[in-house]
Amino acid sequence: MSANAVQQEHSTPPTSAPTAATRPALAPEQLEFRNAMAHLPAAVSIITTDGEGGRCGITASAVCSVTDTPPTILVCINRGSAMHEVFRKNGRLCVNVLSDELEQLAMHFSGATKVPMEERFAWDIWEEQGELGQPVLADALVKLQGRIREFKEVGTHSVMFVELAEVKVNEKKDSLIYFNRLFHKVKRTAL
Amino acid sequence: MSANAVQQEHSTPPTSAPTAATRPALAPEQLEFRNAMAHLPAAVSIITTDGEGGRCGITASAVCSVTDTPPTILVCINRGSAMHEVFRKNGRLCVNVLSDELEQLAMHFSGATKVPMEERFAWDIWEEQGELGQPVLADALVKLQGRIREFKEVGTHSVMFVELAEVKVNEKKDSLIYFNRLFHKVKRTAL
Repeated sequence: MSANAVQQEHSTPPTSAPTAATRPALAPEQLEFRNAMAHLPAAVSIITTDGEGGRCGITASAVCSVTDTPPTILVCINRGSAMHEVFRKNGRLCVNVLSDELEQLAMHFSGATKVPMEERFAWDIWEEQGELGQPVLADALVKLQGRIREFKEVGTHSVMFVELAEVKVNEKKDSLIYFNRLFHKVKRTAL
Repeated sequence: MSANAVQQEHSTPPTSAPTAATRPALAPEQLEFRNAMAHLPAAVSIITTDGEGGRCGITASAVCSVTDTPPTILVCINRGSAMHEVFRKNGRLCVNVLSDELEQLAMHFSGATKVPMEERFAWDIWEEQGELGQPVLADALVKLQGRIREFKEVGTHSVMFVELAEVKVNEKKDSLIYFNRLFHKVKRTAL
């Protein structure tokens, strides 16, 4: 399971992964860590990928800017997630940073609502554009398509380093934040 | 320079680094990337370190949860920053996630206000506690002390992987967000 509450249970674990019934109880330092991470406010994104491994998407908050030379971000994903292998096969992805109106979509892709992968993209809100052709959310605040240059394993997770090829910002949108296990809206203008 | 606006110019570059006068102009894809990252809302932290390399602190937003096994976060830092070598020598740090009242302190440590390093810690708001003894901000929302397990170079930056040893949360504090080049306050309760 992911360290971040938004990312929890966003996929059906592969059969080799521990299930809720067989998973060992969390140690005190793991519970303490998860509580601390729930208090680290973060943007909410839907990470999508399409290619020979298939199409999938997950809600995640573990996205971070790395460098502008070359333009690179990172995305953390649980290696126990069935989607980890899909990202590896496709080698490309899109980070769709959610605007403040998209809380429901965040839940839809979170796994908490148990929506099967094949039904997640059912709504007509997705575009494929540019040379990478990844699923891009028309109404996203920020759209970042890129190639996964490296998977770095750290504990239970992989850090995917993604070199960006297509960058789009909607300068009129406000933002969605996950903090203290709740969604919050943050306007683009000062209060 | 950092990819993220909060992190820009937070240190005196070492003499080997390009100065403003000699630094090449940014390419269009770098400008586009920085604008996109300014629209990725993020928590604001002061990253501190103390040890044989000296004491220093910088304001940063490139902090991300990685895994709870073992409890690990990452922090990105520009290798051109004078502080990069201090982090390397000390091998430990504290991420002090700022609460909503601490916007001024974020500016104080950002470098934008040109406060020399020796004056940044002048106020009596710092504690040293626990076995790591790093500078901990008494009023922080979240306090994360840990050991830097690895520096991974990516482009102009290093990603520091930090295994946490001391984790503290102030359950009464609200949070501070940087979005669209402005600070915003996000309350812990739903609106």
